Amino acid sequence: MHVRILMTCTLGLVTLGAGTQQAAAQQNLVQYVHPIIGTQRMGHTFPGATVPFGMVQLSPETDTIPYEQNGRYNPDVYKYCAGYQYDDKTIVGFSHTHFSGTGHSDLGDFLVMPTVGPLRLNPGVAGEARSGFRSSFSHNNETAEADYYKVKLDDYNILAELTATTRVGMHRYTFPQTDQAHIILDLMYGIYNYDDKNVWTYLRVVNDTLVTGYRETSGWARTRKLFFAVTFSKPFISYGNRNYTRRTAYHGFWGKFNQGSNFPEIAGRQIRAYFDFKTTAGEAIGVKLALSPVSMENALANLRAEIPGWDFDAVKAAGQTAWNQQLQKITIDGADSDKVNFYTSMYHAFINPTIYMDGNGQYEGLDKEVHTADGFTNYTTFSLWDTHRALHPLFNIIEPTRNGDMVRSMLAHFDQSPEQMLPIWSNSANENWCMTGYHSVSVVCDAIVKGIGPFAPGSAHPFDPAAALDACVTTARHRNYDGIGDYIDLGYIPVDKNGNGVSTTLEYAYDDWCIAQAAQKLGKTDIYNEFIKRSQNYRNVWDPSISFMRPRLSDGTFRTTFDPLRTIDEGFIEGNAWNYSLYVPHDPAGLIALMGGNKRFVPHLDSLFTMDLPDKYFAETEDITRDGIIGNYVHGNEPSHHDIYLYDFTDQPWKAQALVRMVLWRMYKPTPDGLGGNDDTGQMSAWYIFSALGFYPVSPGDNKYWLGSPAVRSAVLTLESGKTFKINASNQNATNVYVQSATLNGAPLHRLYITYDEIMNGGNLEFVMGAKPNKKFGK
Amino acid sequence: MHVRILMTCTLGLVTLGAGTQQAAAQQNLVQYVHPIIGTQRMGHTFPGATVPFGMVQLSPETDTIPYEQNGRYNPDVYKYCAGYQYDDKTIVGFSHTHFSGTGHSDLGDFLVMPTVGPLRLNPGVAGEARSGFRSSFSHNNETAEADYYKVKLDDYNILAELTATTRVGMHRYTFPQTDQAHIILDLMYGIYNYDDKNVWTYLRVVNDTLVTGYRETSGWARTRKLFFAVTFSKPFISYGNRNYTRRTAYHGFWGKFNQGSNFPEIAGRQIRAYFDFKTTAGEAIGVKLALSPVSMENALANLRAEIPGWDFDAVKAAGQTAWNQQLQKITIDGADSDKVNFYTSMYHAFINPTIYMDGNGQYEGLDKEVHTADGFTNYTTFSLWDTHRALHPLFNIIEPTRNGDMVRSMLAHFDQSPEQMLPIWSNSANENWCMTGYHSVSVVCDAIVKGIGPFAPGSAHPFDPAAALDACVTTARHRNYDGIGDYIDLGYIPVDKNGNGVSTTLEYAYDDWCIAQAAQKLGKTDIYNEFIKRSQNYRNVWDPSISFMRPRLSDGTFRTTFDPLRTIDEGFIEGNAWNYSLYVPHDPAGLIALMGGNKRFVPHLDSLFTMDLPDKYFAETEDITRDGIIGNYVHGNEPSHHDIYLYDFTDQPWKAQALVRMVLWRMYKPTPDGLGGNDDTGQMSAWYIFSALGFYPVSPGDNKYWLGSPAVRSAVLTLESGKTFKINASNQNATNVYVQSATLNGAPLHRLYITYDEIMNGGNLEFVMGAKPNKKFGK
Repeated sequence: MHVRILMTCTLGLVTLGAGTQQAAAQQNLVQYVHPIIGTQRMGHTFPGATVPFGMVQLSPETDTIPYEQNGRYNPDVYKYCAGYQYDDKTIVGFSHTHFSGTGHSDLGDFLVMPTVGPLRLNPGVAGEARSGFRSSFSHNNETAEADYYKVKLDDYNILAELTATTRVGMHRYTFPQTDQAHIILDLMYGIYNYDDKNVWTYLRVVNDTLVTGYRETSGWARTRKLFFAVTFSKPFISYGNRNYTRRTAYHGFWGKFNQGSNFPEIAGRQIRAYFDFKTTAGEAIGVKLALSPVSMENALANLRAEIPGWDFDAVKAAGQTAWNQQLQKITIDGADSDKVNFYTSMYHAFINPTIYMDGNGQYEGLDKEVHTADGFTNYTTFSLWDTHRALHPLFNIIEPTRNGDMVRSMLAHFDQSPEQMLPIWSNSANENWCMTGYHSVSVVCDAIVKGIGPFAPGSAHPFDPAAALDACVTTARHRNYDGIGDYIDLGYIPVDKNGNGVSTTLEYAYDDWCIAQAAQKLGKTDIYNEFIKRSQNYRNVWDPSISFMRPRLSDGTFRTTFDPLRTIDEGFIEGNAWNYSLYVPHDPAGLIALMGGNKRFVPHLDSLFTMDLPDKYFAETEDITRDGIIGNYVHGNEPSHHDIYLYDFTDQPWKAQALVRMVLWRMYKPTPDGLGGNDDTGQMSAWYIFSALGFYPVSPGDNKYWLGSPAVRSAVLTLESGKTFKINASNQNATNVYVQSATLNGAPLHRLYITYDEIMNGGNLEFVMGAKPNKKFGK
Repeated sequence: MHVRILMTCTLGLVTLGAGTQQAAAQQNLVQYVHPIIGTQRMGHTFPGATVPFGMVQLSPETDTIPYEQNGRYNPDVYKYCAGYQYDDKTIVGFSHTHFSGTGHSDLGDFLVMPTVGPLRLNPGVAGEARSGFRSSFSHNNETAEADYYKVKLDDYNILAELTATTRVGMHRYTFPQTDQAHIILDLMYGIYNYDDKNVWTYLRVVNDTLVTGYRETSGWARTRKLFFAVTFSKPFISYGNRNYTRRTAYHGFWGKFNQGSNFPEIAGRQIRAYFDFKTTAGEAIGVKLALSPVSMENALANLRAEIPGWDFDAVKAAGQTAWNQQLQKITIDGADSDKVNFYTSMYHAFINPTIYMDGNGQYEGLDKEVHTADGFTNYTTFSLWDTHRALHPLFNIIEPTRNGDMVRSMLAHFDQSPEQMLPIWSNSANENWCMTGYHSVSVVCDAIVKGIGPFAPGSAHPFDPAAALDACVTTARHRNYDGIGDYIDLGYIPVDKNGNGVSTTLEYAYDDWCIAQAAQKLGKTDIYNEFIKRSQNYRNVWDPSISFMRPRLSDGTFRTTFDPLRTIDEGFIEGNAWNYSLYVPHDPAGLIALMGGNKRFVPHLDSLFTMDLPDKYFAETEDITRDGIIGNYVHGNEPSHHDIYLYDFTDQPWKAQALVRMVLWRMYKPTPDGLGGNDDTGQMSAWYIFSALGFYPVSPGDNKYWLGSPAVRSAVLTLESGKTFKINASNQNATNVYVQSATLNGAPLHRLYITYDEIMNGGNLEFVMGAKPNKKFGK
């Protein structure tokens, strides 16, 4: 059953309306969401509370790095990209913003921590009990669900519970009896904070239950502001703060007040505030903290609109209803452990990008001006190098209207960007330029080609596709960005000028092909011709003498020193030449021909999964555990995500079927350490979802989904139109991984792909599975 | 002739409209304005360009202190409160915001400097030619007029000219022929910058003639933001910046660009940008820089609204017309040097407070939210400890509507203040709490009592006087502010708890009397009773055994160690016990009685002016030159400003007449070093204006102006109503300083004061002067 839940994200407030009765008839899918998955080692997910795509993502912090302005890089900071590591024994508090699964990080805004006893304002050292306000905790006393997190803070005998709406985090702290209960609001804490990110912080105590403020940081987002309003369910008796700023501005006459205690206006670079209460045994104090990218006033309006009262359980229930509705978009049949993997992947796929807009439509743009979103919801947290591959294509199927809003957000980003470029990595009204390519082009052009969201005929959110194409072209012609000038002039990016020159050349070539597809759709022949030609530039870094993509120099020669297994210093990024030499997603046939046809290509591809990668090379692969690698296939890094499906373009497609199932089995487990690499804001999860359903978008920008091997027994995709697309896999089990035959809408399928229209029109895709390959299937 | 020029300040754009022809018939009073007066030594005025009360006050900086993040206090910083010292030999640039005459400082935003030759981005060292971008200059090549400043930059052969509208500074730089012309935009420079005030700066190069940005500082204003938009009359060929921030945030992938050169998005704590041009000989490049307290977008709107074109001479002419209209409010007859003193005083009186509101009515409030002024113009830069004495009373006469808007600005400040207090020293949406008392109470209550501006019957800017009184009362009852709790409980502020306890007790007592007057006017008997009682608290620090106000301790005893000539460590501020013992402006009769009546009081007051203050005490008087003292009378510090007029309350009023003229003569000279102390945002000038006209408001909050000795031959005050109040002083000259007789509207005046209503109703005040006192006059 399809229930539209757009209101959840545009209005933020999850109301228990007409949809509820329908939802009651739905399966309880939230039970299969285990947010704890991926919190151990390299997954970089967080266990805390969020609604789908929430601006607030409220989660515990276990960071053990002293963050008191140490100003030195600490390599351990990488562990804490999402603030929480499962192996840690202490929690330092709960903050309201997180990235899910990233390999660099930021955020961690507005840490709240309840304590009892003598006030301690230093966070303390992990392993030294009572050395600061952090508390020990145990996983035995911890629960992580969709939009709900609960933990016992052992040092204080406080039960902490968290839930959230789109823009408001709600805390419920159940205290013991004490005259010394405190709630600390730490404005110093931040994720990836080694570099003293705080630029400025401000707090105003409006009355004895309401505090507003903001923080400005310069981290991965260089010039970032975030405003808040926080309210308590019970008046505090007293309050105060400590300013840890080493050097402070003029304050000659500020001494007229004791500013540290019960003084309502607090500002500086490094501040922790606290609020004091008396509690009876078992008394719960509620805290609601709302965010805004625009103003404290907007934060307060968000707070009042989304959670007017103090019914924690109702907010949690509404959040879980919203999740259940979101998860219903794909229902599957399978073993419980498969459902846990599947729905936790669905959950992780619906955390980022994040809504970046107040309830009144205002947001801060890249130009540092306040804008009002005109007819769309504005999003940020676009990790596009990752997510253009499968996450946005997944949205295009199960929620194209939302993906259309994401496209509009990218186009607004373009309009507001000082550089006049579409986003590379959009982070809270900032561009951090992370990774290579200009892959928003893939998302925008795919949307044009598929006619989704604002580009859909009769869309409620219209947009001019010609203007969108122009944004793509302008981005792709930005000569002084990351080698584009050389790429245009030479057809490749010389590695003597650009350390990632080979990877970037290959990625630009794919993106350019996307532009050509959109131009063709819009009848822009000149643009088509320009970019279809550019899309063949991958050939210019191909060295036929060794059959590898290879670093090339400004003088046109290939660099003589070259190790195709190395990742670093070879012109590649997050993938060695072995992996990147397979990266021509838009022209597999051309690549196979370059490599000498099936006869040479298939054994080469086979060896990717069977070779033994020496440890010295593993050390260079970023972001992934040893388990995240099969041979030299590095699933934890995205450039390989289409590799398995390349078998579909050869004469031995059944090899894809077995390998897909192996990766689904080995790289995704329903355990805290279940993710073999960073989830990368949902891209790894989107790969899981597609592959478990039996198909995958090898080249977003066209309309094909290439078949693998379904890992579900059956599935129903409920589309926005109300139509359903059903998948059934007869005889599917752990050993029956090979497709024997398939039908689409009852007709035998004699090809290895299905199309976007076939899915969106609704229909039935039936697989028959078996333990041995049917080498004729698909021919 | 009266021409309303309110449009100048509310719209900012000085249009040449209907008023111009009338103005042509007016006297040219601008010729008597010499902005250079007070720029040498202690005056702390600036010579640059501003319209009355302008948000932009664009002036040269001669600061010789290296300001490259030295982070150490440099006592010389005090010299540069207004950025310019007449004795300096080099100019480092032209910045857009200044305080006029303050004794602490801030601002100096957005320094612009034109240069030629090889680019130098360091300011250089004064005295070392070509050590940086500063240039030598000569007063021979310098012109300072109202809203116009011109100087030759000798090192570059550039003629620099400045003018301004309310929110836009306009520069005209006439270059020599060169391929290497530069205009530097220095975001590091600031006034009182030793403490590394910059919090963050941001610049966006929108196109080759337009740049927008902002700066956040933490200085005297703790949390201050200012936005700008700057445009050039000619496209720059290239541009760049240098980021002097020592530690910068993450910028891993920012290296994809060369951010130092031709990169449009610049952010950091310490940045200087530059713009390159080629010029022909004598080619002028125009620069327009607009400010906004709210956003870059508003700054750009201000720019376009106020100076749409590039006609520098027209902007200058309109600004000088605005000044001439402003100065016409009081026309005088006298010697040219007297006119220079008078109109330069008028000029200095109309610089601060400053408009703090965009053309669209938006401004940032004390609560750090954006507000829209509802029916009034919002002001900041309220140095109220100084200006409540004579500057606001002057406004109440010659522009009560504007003063009403200032009162509304103070009430908005109260509403937005986290502490719920009226302003003490309002500085760009910040309270810096500078000095003692809560003297906005004086201004607000005086407005209530006199029914000015928003309190006037039928006012276009209505305000609820009861709410205004409530703001005063709330402020005065703020127990944890600067000793108020003790003041309420004990009737005085013990100096063992509060270093300025005696001064503050005396000032609160006066302010409380103001509240009582307003309460009486509004029929609030309870409030009247409470505060009229508090207004007698001055008696609680009076030690009859020595006839001085004296530091008193918590236990009720007077402190035994006490030196009535010392200023520091004696419980006083900017005035010793000698001076402060005369500070009961609201009850001179009570004070005289305390002191033993005229017989003891008059010789005591005489001795103030005749005693010899040993040098060791002079060293403790702040902000003033040796010339700024007569005996122990320190005219450069405000607590003495009413002292001379206290003779009017004795049996020897003629002594006031001689002394007023002595002070007018000795403390105000038409020369760069002509001010004996800080002008204090116009208070010193307002004293001059009143005293030169022949009367002075001893106790704002009542309706009386006490007579001194007019220094004009005649004067006409043109009131907002169109009525005129004329003053004539027959036989007045340098020796005929004594009033022989006076008539008001033809009737002999047998008292030593005139009233507010007598002035505002229009009329004629005729003095007959002589060389010897008429001891019967006024009886």
